[in-house]
Amino acid sequence: MSKRDRYEDDLERLQLALVGFQQRAMESGARTLVVFEGRDAAGKDGAIQRVIEHLSPRATRVVALPKPSDRERGQWFFQRYAAHLPAAGELVLFNRSWYNRAGVERVMGFSTPEEQAVFPGQARAFEAMLVESGITLLKLWLDISREEQAKRLEARRSEPLKALKISPLDAEAQARWDDYTAARDRMLVETHAEIAPWTCVATDDKREARLNVIRRLLEVVAPGAAEPAAPVIAFAFEPAAMHDGRLAR
Amino acid sequence: MSKRDRYEDDLERLQLALVGFQQRAMESGARTLVVFEGRDAAGKDGAIQRVIEHLSPRATRVVALPKPSDRERGQWFFQRYAAHLPAAGELVLFNRSWYNRAGVERVMGFSTPEEQAVFPGQARAFEAMLVESGITLLKLWLDISREEQAKRLEARRSEPLKALKISPLDAEAQARWDDYTAARDRMLVETHAEIAPWTCVATDDKREARLNVIRRLLEVVAPGAAEPAAPVIAFAFEPAAMHDGRLAR
Amino acid sequence: MSKRDRYEDDLERLQLALVGFQQRAMESGARTLVVFEGRDAAGKDGAIQRVIEHLSPRATRVVALPKPSDRERGQWFFQRYAAHLPAAGELVLFNRSWYNRAGVERVMGFSTPEEQAVFPGQARAFEAMLVESGITLLKLWLDISREEQAKRLEARRSEPLKALKISPLDAEAQARWDDYTAARDRMLVETHAEIAPWTCVATDDKREARLNVIRRLLEVVAPGAAEPAAPVIAFAFEPAAMHDGRLAR
Amino acid sequence: MSKRDRYEDDLERLQLALVGFQQRAMESGARTLVVFEGRDAAGKDGAIQRVIEHLSPRATRVVALPKPSDRERGQWFFQRYAAHLPAAGELVLFNRSWYNRAGVERVMGFSTPEEQAVFPGQARAFEAMLVESGITLLKLWLDISREEQAKRLEARRSEPLKALKISPLDAEAQARWDDYTAARDRMLVETHAEIAPWTCVATDDKREARLNVIRRLLEVVAPGAAEPAAPVIAFAFEPAAMHDGRLAR
Repeated sequence: MSKRDRYEDDLERLQLALVGFQQRAMESGARTLVVFEGRDAAGKDGAIQRVIEHLSPRATRVVALPKPSDRERGQWFFQRYAAHLPAAGELVLFNRSWYNRAGVERVMGFSTPEEQAVFPGQARAFEAMLVESGITLLKLWLDISREEQAKRLEARRSEPLKALKISPLDAEAQARWDDYTAARDRMLVETHAEIAPWTCVATDDKREARLNVIRRLLEVVAPGAAEPAAPVIAFAFEPAAMHDGRLAR
Repeated sequence: MSKRDRYEDDLERLQLALVGFQQRAMESGARTLVVFEGRDAAGKDGAIQRVIEHLSPRATRVVALPKPSDRERGQWFFQRYAAHLPAAGELVLFNRSWYNRAGVERVMGFSTPEEQAVFPGQARAFEAMLVESGITLLKLWLDISREEQAKRLEARRSEPLKALKISPLDAEAQARWDDYTAARDRMLVETHAEIAPWTCVATDDKREARLNVIRRLLEVVAPGAAEPAAPVIAFAFEPAAMHDGRLAR
Repeated sequence: MSKRDRYEDDLERLQLALVGFQQRAMESGARTLVVFEGRDAAGKDGAIQRVIEHLSPRATRVVALPKPSDRERGQWFFQRYAAHLPAAGELVLFNRSWYNRAGVERVMGFSTPEEQAVFPGQARAFEAMLVESGITLLKLWLDISREEQAKRLEARRSEPLKALKISPLDAEAQARWDDYTAARDRMLVETHAEIAPWTCVATDDKREARLNVIRRLLEVVAPGAAEPAAPVIAFAFEPAAMHDGRLAR
Repeated sequence: MSKRDRYEDDLERLQLALVGFQQRAMESGARTLVVFEGRDAAGKDGAIQRVIEHLSPRATRVVALPKPSDRERGQWFFQRYAAHLPAAGELVLFNRSWYNRAGVERVMGFSTPEEQAVFPGQARAFEAMLVESGITLLKLWLDISREEQAKRLEARRSEPLKALKISPLDAEAQARWDDYTAARDRMLVETHAEIAPWTCVATDDKREARLNVIRRLLEVVAPGAAEPAAPVIAFAFEPAAMHDGRLAR
């Protein structure tokens, strides 16, 4: 069996487990929220497409909010996200989320020091409320290496089909790599909580990443439904392992 | 000067201070949220009308949510309230609020023990987030005596103009007086926090109550703009004073 | 009986009929939408307060939208209004409405010629849909004279309690009186339809105006419940009578 | 070149044209709305996935509304759809739409004769407003044959990965084939308008259908960007050709 065939095979098996999960969720009214975060080109869009491929469009929503309106900028920061939380039986996937504040906003200076200062506590409190109220929350950090990101950003520039993935901030992703690393580490440490932990998924291998995202999702929503992910590739974030300034694996 | 004239006089002076407050809030972008709670007939509607009488309709919103839709019942409990939080420069007044859960829902058994169990912590966390994010929050408990409530509920039945104030639950308000008292005390103790304290306002004297509501609001949003409220009538809730099962004054 | 006493008496009687109407509407699920339009200081706020005074806060909503956000400016013009239409059993009162486009926006040049050109047809189509779908729609033009407006605008400047009614556009209301007259006439002619007619209410006499607003509302929602309004003061708009450039009475 | 390779090739070329279109739309603020309708299993989900595959998640939204809440059922029928219309620069795809009323609701008796009676006029008026206000609207009817539908519905039952596509109404799709045909013809005739015409796309050949959907979309939003669709397969609906009770091709 070729590597590609094995991937297709694994993917189908995992997607089938997702179908089973959603059937049960729609019956029981279970609510699930998945937050996809990661640097530019880390593979969020592709992973999301594989998760939702065979799910019910009426019970699944992908939320990728545009930049806030002027009115929204004057509101409680989480208000515009709260409007999209899952109702009974729904699975909602955030393609980027409130963690913009801890990532691009921090690195690029798009929010004030006061907004930065309150964010981690607010995120922890917000997520704790959601979990306590019965929402199953999975926070995924898709982790890409500097070299792989450079390669993918370069590919975007040369492949016309990827033109819409290009952003004026792409250049910053590499130029400010260390700032983004520091922001990521800080975010993971400050917002990792027992009730709402981060899962990190290495994404230099796209296919493995997609499989691991689904594996981890299944572990969370349907324990026992999928084999555990290989620990070297998908791993629970460990604050204690952060001392050397990089994600421990 | 008659008692009524003095009231009109006081009211106008306090409303004038509110006008000044709102002018500044619209310039500075300050956000204010006032929660009106209290038993049936405690005077919430009337107090709100006096607060907003001379304010800007475009910067002031009164939110009195109908019962949740079937879809909303499957959502995060605070989601439908979050949609109405104040934007920059706005004053929002909730005529009843998420505290329905701790009051009528608790006494009448309209929510599950699990929902009851998580409510106080969720309310504290939700309010802490709002305050920390810069919203000024005032929580008012309008406190009526059993006798005065009986009188007002009776008046509703005999005055056709008040017909819409009548609810099928009115009879329960008196019949389950002690249950409502216990629910109130529990709610006040469990959700009183330094960052989001309760203010209790005795409302057997309607006019005094309205003046005290505005005085307290001004103390909070514009310290120094109004003379302090008479301590016997409007008072900060004191958990320590609850041992005898009634509101201390 | 003094003139004031008679007013209080009439007002109470009409409000009582409104209470009866709302009781029936909440049972039957009838939906009612009232649009309040008129020049600055024509008495919209005061009339609305008298309509809602004894109604149920949970079945009545007053909608006074702030200026559109940048995102809303890129949407279908009626979208942000559509979000506030009455659900079953509700009475919604718009304090200004989509007719801003035909009034202040036209006179002050706040929208493009293209937006101006399509507005009347869009308003007619939008309203026809609402009416056809079972919503009872009442469009009220509160009509004030130039002299009375001058007096009221002057009063706002001298009475601190009315400070929030002052707008930077007040000066234009008088300076561009004729432009506003032309815009009004054009709007009434272009958007008066059998299915959604305008009612004009002369408001130089505030008390009469408030009574007439409620009388007209009752005529529409509860035919027979109220005596007809005095024809000189409240009147159905007559396009044929517009040839002399003023509202016919 | 194999048939599959040719398809991949054509698809990529068309998707590239979509990318170009969206780049221009995001710059110009152009708004686009595509309505996907068709019988069960006609291929709506798959066609939508190919349209959005390389587009910007932040400027593209797929809207597949769940059944209305009890509160929504009491509102203006188009209200919950209006909330999702495209803002400046956005492309919105409705996976089913207000045409549920003319299809499944009509056949299955889920709405009243009154609601049925007003629907076609309301849909025409609603769409005319959107188009006139500058939204580009494309209404697609994905047309499947009875035999192909039977095959696909059968496949759903035997392929576990398609389990979520199964609906209790699937059996009716075949059993009431003629009723659905009558409803479709009536809907097309009654809601086909010069300003908002229907395009029919034959979908028995899935791949051709997907290509034709994108071809037609490009014709509408970017005239000249794509070769015209083969007339036998994708075709503008012609009311005159309906006399024999089936879609003319």
